[in-house]
Amino acid sequence: MATIKEIADRLGVSISTVSKGLNGASDVSHELKQTILDTAVEMGYTTKRMKKEENKKLCIFVENMDYESSSHFCYDVILGFKQSAFRENWSVTVLPITPTFQSQEKYDTFMLKNGYSGAFLIGLNLQDLWIDQIKTTTIPTVLFDNYVRFNPNVAYVGTDSSEGIDIAIEHLCHLGHRKIAFLNGSLHSMITELREQAFFNSMEAHNIPVNKDLLANGSYIADSAKDYVPRFLDLGATAILCGNDLIAYGVIRECEMRGFRIPEDISVIGFDDLPLSAHLNTALTTIRQDRIELGKCSYLALHGLLNHISIGNITLRPQFIVRNSTAKVVDR
Amino acid sequence: MATIKEIADRLGVSISTVSKGLNGASDVSHELKQTILDTAVEMGYTTKRMKKEENKKLCIFVENMDYESSSHFCYDVILGFKQSAFRENWSVTVLPITPTFQSQEKYDTFMLKNGYSGAFLIGLNLQDLWIDQIKTTTIPTVLFDNYVRFNPNVAYVGTDSSEGIDIAIEHLCHLGHRKIAFLNGSLHSMITELREQAFFNSMEAHNIPVNKDLLANGSYIADSAKDYVPRFLDLGATAILCGNDLIAYGVIRECEMRGFRIPEDISVIGFDDLPLSAHLNTALTTIRQDRIELGKCSYLALHGLLNHISIGNITLRPQFIVRNSTAKVVDR
Repeated sequence: MATIKEIADRLGVSISTVSKGLNGASDVSHELKQTILDTAVEMGYTTKRMKKEENKKLCIFVENMDYESSSHFCYDVILGFKQSAFRENWSVTVLPITPTFQSQEKYDTFMLKNGYSGAFLIGLNLQDLWIDQIKTTTIPTVLFDNYVRFNPNVAYVGTDSSEGIDIAIEHLCHLGHRKIAFLNGSLHSMITELREQAFFNSMEAHNIPVNKDLLANGSYIADSAKDYVPRFLDLGATAILCGNDLIAYGVIRECEMRGFRIPEDISVIGFDDLPLSAHLNTALTTIRQDRIELGKCSYLALHGLLNHISIGNITLRPQFIVRNSTAKVVDR
Repeated sequence: MATIKEIADRLGVSISTVSKGLNGASDVSHELKQTILDTAVEMGYTTKRMKKEENKKLCIFVENMDYESSSHFCYDVILGFKQSAFRENWSVTVLPITPTFQSQEKYDTFMLKNGYSGAFLIGLNLQDLWIDQIKTTTIPTVLFDNYVRFNPNVAYVGTDSSEGIDIAIEHLCHLGHRKIAFLNGSLHSMITELREQAFFNSMEAHNIPVNKDLLANGSYIADSAKDYVPRFLDLGATAILCGNDLIAYGVIRECEMRGFRIPEDISVIGFDDLPLSAHLNTALTTIRQDRIELGKCSYLALHGLLNHISIGNITLRPQFIVRNSTAKVVDR
């Protein structure tokens, strides 16, 4: 756990300022207080005030995703959630879960047994046992990128994939691309299905017939690319839209290994805007998700559910970030 | 952000004229003021007036809907919004607007001129001039039951119509109804379109063919019923789903005038759950919208936009309220 001195060093302020900020002293500005609190949360500092209220506990469950480093997608989502929860004196536990764990522990029972008032679940897929149990849960529950119909105790938070994909296709069309491949993420994921549907809708709206051989489901990792990129290149794709940035990293590598230049020969677009994406040799054009705000909105939704407000979903708009991995089409 | 000098240069007038125009000085003509404001808006200029703490002003625009009495749909929506806004020291003005007003005042210009930092708009339809202008507005704007794609300054708040209609159809199916009519609200409304689509989807999901003669668009008032109910009855409808509670009141009246009993002969379902609906002679089964919370969520969305968080939409779940206007089908 971080000390007050470490927080002070990071922010370049005095120890007494940090201490005042954490204790809500009136001679520290509102903005600085927020910054001190946000930084304290990020660095894992916990105030006594938080520990006192032992029964205010929330849990974040993460499946099949990394979150330990700020380069990981989930890091900022969790951070945003914690920053908001901390302000209302919740303690937040982060637990990685597996399908095996879900088969051993029923969701509601686990929550009750451990005294959690509510939960935020990230990375679950449609075949997960807990997704099925959450259809009827009585525990306030927020799902990231997953949706359960009819249960007023469950909300869905995510980014509008449809709008993101549509802006990306519009961008590629504007650059003259028509042979557009889509290397999507894993099957059995709601977000994969939404993005596929968005791709079909947008291609249709732009009057571009979809060649199904230019569509594939890998998984949300860079290694997905090697199984599909050769086919896309053989079929003359001039642009490859990717289910996330990690896939895009793999796609760029596979293209370059085969002597195709990005963006001169092939345009590549990611989804997420991970911190690394701006710093690749060829900086990635991508559909940005605001992860800190997604975390904050997830807390907001959970706060609503805890107060019996049946928030069904909160969707953030994506932001399209044009960098260097897309360019005008050149006939091959 | 543009400076006053840049606006002056663009218009070929002096800096002091621009300054007077922005501050509403009486010695600048009305036309020139409008031009200065229009240009300021176009160039992204923001007045200090808008940023000052003592001038924290929001506006709620209402078109074509009543809101003065607690029996009106909008009353609680506005109340919920104000309750949340007042806690953060905003003053809130409620302005009824008309299509004529919209043709006389550009949205962004009106907002800037009056020093409003953001707005919440209720009751606009798809043909309204302002809806078109809001597609590119730079002013934080929340639309109730309307959606504008791609603009990160605009959010949509509403109730999930799809889920509401689906629960209603499920309820009617469970009671044995198959000749289900749908008297929807006005054309040129996003919510009307969403509810119609939801009706088709749900009927299909329940394996009930849709008879298009049992579908109609009236408007969102009780008087709509008299034009369509006779046809529905002639065609043997056993249940009538309505676009809102007001329509349902009219439907019940028309049925009863023709000797059909509710619910023995005809089941009727509303949408909204207005305060009166529980107190009709035959208390209305309806799809409830939580109006206070819709207002609060609208403020929440606006608060996000004002802080540069691109909330696209917040959707609340409906609640299905079973009362006395629905019953098992009896063959006529």
